[in-house]
Amino acid sequence: MIFTSDNWAGAHPAISRGLEANASGFAAAYGTSELDRKVEATFNRIFGREVAVFFVGTGTAANSLALSSINRPGGVSFCHREAHVIEDECGAPEYFTHGARLVPVDGAYGKIDPETLESEIGRFPPGFVHAGQPMAITITQSTEIGTVYSADEIRAISAIAKAHGLPLHMDGARFANALVALDLSPDEMTADLGIDIVSFGGTKNGCWCAEALVFMDPAMARDLPFIRKRAAQLFSKSRFIAAQFEAYFEGDLWLDLARHANAMSARLQAGIKASSGARLGWEGPANETFAVMGKAKAAHLRELGAMFYDWNLPRSNRGLTTPDETLARLVTSFATTADDVDRFIEALG
Amino acid sequence: MIFTSDNWAGAHPAISRGLEANASGFAAAYGTSELDRKVEATFNRIFGREVAVFFVGTGTAANSLALSSINRPGGVSFCHREAHVIEDECGAPEYFTHGARLVPVDGAYGKIDPETLESEIGRFPPGFVHAGQPMAITITQSTEIGTVYSADEIRAISAIAKAHGLPLHMDGARFANALVALDLSPDEMTADLGIDIVSFGGTKNGCWCAEALVFMDPAMARDLPFIRKRAAQLFSKSRFIAAQFEAYFEGDLWLDLARHANAMSARLQAGIKASSGARLGWEGPANETFAVMGKAKAAHLRELGAMFYDWNLPRSNRGLTTPDETLARLVTSFATTADDVDRFIEALG
Amino acid sequence: MIFTSDNWAGAHPAISRGLEANASGFAAAYGTSELDRKVEATFNRIFGREVAVFFVGTGTAANSLALSSINRPGGVSFCHREAHVIEDECGAPEYFTHGARLVPVDGAYGKIDPETLESEIGRFPPGFVHAGQPMAITITQSTEIGTVYSADEIRAISAIAKAHGLPLHMDGARFANALVALDLSPDEMTADLGIDIVSFGGTKNGCWCAEALVFMDPAMARDLPFIRKRAAQLFSKSRFIAAQFEAYFEGDLWLDLARHANAMSARLQAGIKASSGARLGWEGPANETFAVMGKAKAAHLRELGAMFYDWNLPRSNRGLTTPDETLARLVTSFATTADDVDRFIEALG
Amino acid sequence: MIFTSDNWAGAHPAISRGLEANASGFAAAYGTSELDRKVEATFNRIFGREVAVFFVGTGTAANSLALSSINRPGGVSFCHREAHVIEDECGAPEYFTHGARLVPVDGAYGKIDPETLESEIGRFPPGFVHAGQPMAITITQSTEIGTVYSADEIRAISAIAKAHGLPLHMDGARFANALVALDLSPDEMTADLGIDIVSFGGTKNGCWCAEALVFMDPAMARDLPFIRKRAAQLFSKSRFIAAQFEAYFEGDLWLDLARHANAMSARLQAGIKASSGARLGWEGPANETFAVMGKAKAAHLRELGAMFYDWNLPRSNRGLTTPDETLARLVTSFATTADDVDRFIEALG
Repeated sequence: MIFTSDNWAGAHPAISRGLEANASGFAAAYGTSELDRKVEATFNRIFGREVAVFFVGTGTAANSLALSSINRPGGVSFCHREAHVIEDECGAPEYFTHGARLVPVDGAYGKIDPETLESEIGRFPPGFVHAGQPMAITITQSTEIGTVYSADEIRAISAIAKAHGLPLHMDGARFANALVALDLSPDEMTADLGIDIVSFGGTKNGCWCAEALVFMDPAMARDLPFIRKRAAQLFSKSRFIAAQFEAYFEGDLWLDLARHANAMSARLQAGIKASSGARLGWEGPANETFAVMGKAKAAHLRELGAMFYDWNLPRSNRGLTTPDETLARLVTSFATTADDVDRFIEALG
Repeated sequence: MIFTSDNWAGAHPAISRGLEANASGFAAAYGTSELDRKVEATFNRIFGREVAVFFVGTGTAANSLALSSINRPGGVSFCHREAHVIEDECGAPEYFTHGARLVPVDGAYGKIDPETLESEIGRFPPGFVHAGQPMAITITQSTEIGTVYSADEIRAISAIAKAHGLPLHMDGARFANALVALDLSPDEMTADLGIDIVSFGGTKNGCWCAEALVFMDPAMARDLPFIRKRAAQLFSKSRFIAAQFEAYFEGDLWLDLARHANAMSARLQAGIKASSGARLGWEGPANETFAVMGKAKAAHLRELGAMFYDWNLPRSNRGLTTPDETLARLVTSFATTADDVDRFIEALG
Repeated sequence: MIFTSDNWAGAHPAISRGLEANASGFAAAYGTSELDRKVEATFNRIFGREVAVFFVGTGTAANSLALSSINRPGGVSFCHREAHVIEDECGAPEYFTHGARLVPVDGAYGKIDPETLESEIGRFPPGFVHAGQPMAITITQSTEIGTVYSADEIRAISAIAKAHGLPLHMDGARFANALVALDLSPDEMTADLGIDIVSFGGTKNGCWCAEALVFMDPAMARDLPFIRKRAAQLFSKSRFIAAQFEAYFEGDLWLDLARHANAMSARLQAGIKASSGARLGWEGPANETFAVMGKAKAAHLRELGAMFYDWNLPRSNRGLTTPDETLARLVTSFATTADDVDRFIEALG
Repeated sequence: MIFTSDNWAGAHPAISRGLEANASGFAAAYGTSELDRKVEATFNRIFGREVAVFFVGTGTAANSLALSSINRPGGVSFCHREAHVIEDECGAPEYFTHGARLVPVDGAYGKIDPETLESEIGRFPPGFVHAGQPMAITITQSTEIGTVYSADEIRAISAIAKAHGLPLHMDGARFANALVALDLSPDEMTADLGIDIVSFGGTKNGCWCAEALVFMDPAMARDLPFIRKRAAQLFSKSRFIAAQFEAYFEGDLWLDLARHANAMSARLQAGIKASSGARLGWEGPANETFAVMGKAKAAHLRELGAMFYDWNLPRSNRGLTTPDETLARLVTSFATTADDVDRFIEALG
């Protein structure tokens, strides 16, 4: 009953096998091997266009290098108030960009509200040097709280980005979970909606350590080879990432793993709705479930072996809990079993 | 006959097995798992003291974070003129330190000359703001050209570091190769000689991706957790590095692999000395061999399938080659076979 | 009737004379002249202790270097939501600190609310690497909106700073205006209340370009000479700043100028309170007056030659204006005349 | 007999008067006043084209912001080994550019040797991520040692810059001294020869504090307003710089002051050549004289009140001095008198 995070799981057996299959023999280093090339071609296929792909080691690296690639003096990027880039990366985006600022934008259910976004951008008028200048918009898909931007919702934000000439980045640490929830193809969820750069995560969905930075327009990535190397994110045995991605995409494993994780979350949500021991914070189609329960109940569950984090109430959900209650976050992954879920629901009572 | 680099090899089978053995089950993320703790304890044992250990993804990261941890305004670090930090990291150390400068110091056979070092440090008098201020000394062990600092040579540099109050860092991307060449224990080659921080490399010696930053005095590493996270080098599934190191240290595998790589290089050097087709650039006890040969000969070898890089003549070896000759670098690793070496020597004629 | 800003004035004649008096002759460069030393001694006298003083060119530089001097990885500084450092410096503090973040703290009338501050600091628990770590608190005295922290109010914030081990910085771009408003001595308004570093502004109060960074404990400023030089803020003819400060302090000119500016603002506030053409936004003892007036009235005043800026409503004053009204900011300085004020009030009707 | 540096002088009386003339009255802040515009127009006239001009406070700021404006990841700039940017700015260029590296290029008499430059650039092949990528070339005119690049010499370097697509920057801290030495107009010495950016210094030639960053192509300066503000170099009372420049250009004062300084240096050089007490290190048409003299002689001169610095032997002048000799640097300025020079020569014997 471990629901702490999808990164508490290890690696899927197919990923391990992929690594083992590529362990022997020699291959060109620093991202120039045949396997690197082959996996890059797979990305082209998946995104339905020639993209520029760069393997990196962590999601924080992908996000920070994405912003570095579009960095500008006095730059200001707009993200949701509870986004990973602003809440959980220890200032890495600011560090890598030499101080470009992140401005939090409010919005219900983990998603940027377009009107609020427009208003926040308006605080930085063109040419007004005292305030700084807008530089990028970044959204998280699926969000930090298990919700998913619809195509229309992305389109609305994208329209604002285009109107202001701002690149639009998607933090896709849980890209696959959103993708299967929306039943879209990668290009339908990104380039077709005006997304310019994707942090494409594999780690949370069954890899050991496999993240990629994907540029829809390779021309935007011109300096990225230097940006990545300078940031210590070019791996000498780069094929160890390529090999994971190869196995990840093989036979659409990645989509299957995401579907499983989402299904386990749906099973949790259904169980909670039917239970009298907790109530659902909100519904979310991806792999995170939020349950409001009494603190005593939470303690009891933990005694029975359940592991999960108490979560800060989102600003737009003030009042959801009473002082005696907690908001429990339950994350599922490829490694979560239906049995685990059922035992949790049973324990919930 | 692939002698391009030790990072063209993949991973040793024991490393693959280590990863596979830890792939299932759940474990705490971000470096807090039991396996992380266990491997950190192994580092303590190996270094004969309580050290502070931080896993990172690349050698460039280890070096850059080491310098970041001792960063100071106007800071200047001293390294060998041909060191990896100054020649091959795309300015990462300067990037991560916000512009701290690297000053190249000359010295024969890839090793800093103590007298020259003293003179270079002297160019930055205490309190003289125009020049900047000394910040650190960093040496590479084994060096970029297959040589190894003796204990006495390290002691001489360490004495200068202490006299100027400067931390002393060792870039140990090929730490194991130097260690077995000198037949010293890790503490004898580091803390006992005044080394403060080690970039401890596993990748070049049989791992996929396993580097560690080791501080002899944990108090020096107080801010490192934040330095590492901010630099996007804290891996969520950190145990994938821990698992590699666990297998690496098990039964002294790491020393065996390094001994093998060094022996293959010794075999190459012996073959070259006995050959009329090339001559040895210099002797080196670690896993790199440098051979001077005619350009036609080099082309011929490559036609036969040999792979290696032409190397820039070190400044202290000017005159070693004629215009018709090249300096070939031949790197061996755990994956190099005696048969490969013998075929190369035979082809050399 | 120019009330746009106190930096629209030029220099007080005594400042000009001070520059002229020191123009001829030779003097040691880069802050080492006798005049530099003499003015530094004046700072010691004024602050009643041996402080460390560093002349810089702009208030933004003073603030940014103050934060640089206490910088730490993943560092987070707390300031009022409408503070100059976060609203008007184009990200300079983040740029100079390599990305240390500023977190806005709410509070009425331009002043940090201690309870809110405590709660914001609480979001960054010690050792929790994902969030970053607290680094400093910075307050503005007098504030951006003409109010002044009382000694007790500073003490309350200082107590929080000490409890968390955080240095406390005061942005004193309008230091003198606050000082005479509170009728305190410089040490009573700073060191005695736990302020560690002051950005001491002279420019807005009659100098051309004279700012100083003052450390109550010189040990905290150990690296500042390098921090300042590296930031391009060490002036070769540093005595041009020293000469301004010499004239500024001579015969307590600085206090007289601040008293005059404050008196002109008080005269404005009295006039507005007595007028039916506008109402006072709030009272403030320093040199800024905020008037709520109809937009038509504002336009009429501008036609008559009055110059002032419309100001964004502070978050804590939502509802102060109707849609037909504007919040006018009126700043007075040493160069403001009673006649100017009276004409404005008359025009206001 | 003060020959320490041209920044030991104060300000020329005309500069003081210019400041005083603009001290009263109000003017728009932050570089938007009429006087700012007027002086910018003067720059256009002087450079014979519409340039983009930005006032800054120090030469180090001008150089660092110039490089910031053309910054790129892994960037490497090429300067003379003894250039101010690499020797005397405490790493400011690296700090402001987030770690872009300066590579020293040798060349006799303080001037970059074109062939060596070409060879150094060649060490950074296009697309080779390990080494970094070329970013800019910067030359100093007049040089650190009183020599001046001829038009042809600049042309040769410019051709290399163009061939590699690199912007060419001129550090003109002593721009005027070079200009009158060559008898060229500003555009003939810059844009016509392919210079893209000039750090235009006024401070060393009679101003208190007046430096400007001049872009020959305003399109290159698009982000400069933000770059300058973020770097704390936008002065609120910017007209204090504008006023100095206004007086500086009025009636070609600046050229007269530079001619005087150069003439004083020529007088020194002639005196030294005729003297038996010292010999000339080399000839230089600008305002710096280098004399080789016995250490006892130097001590004697200092006893008589002469002030000057001992200078490090340029690398290309090894062997110029015996162990008993020193290389004395003598800098003249607008404030140097013929009497001072004559007394020095007389004392030299």
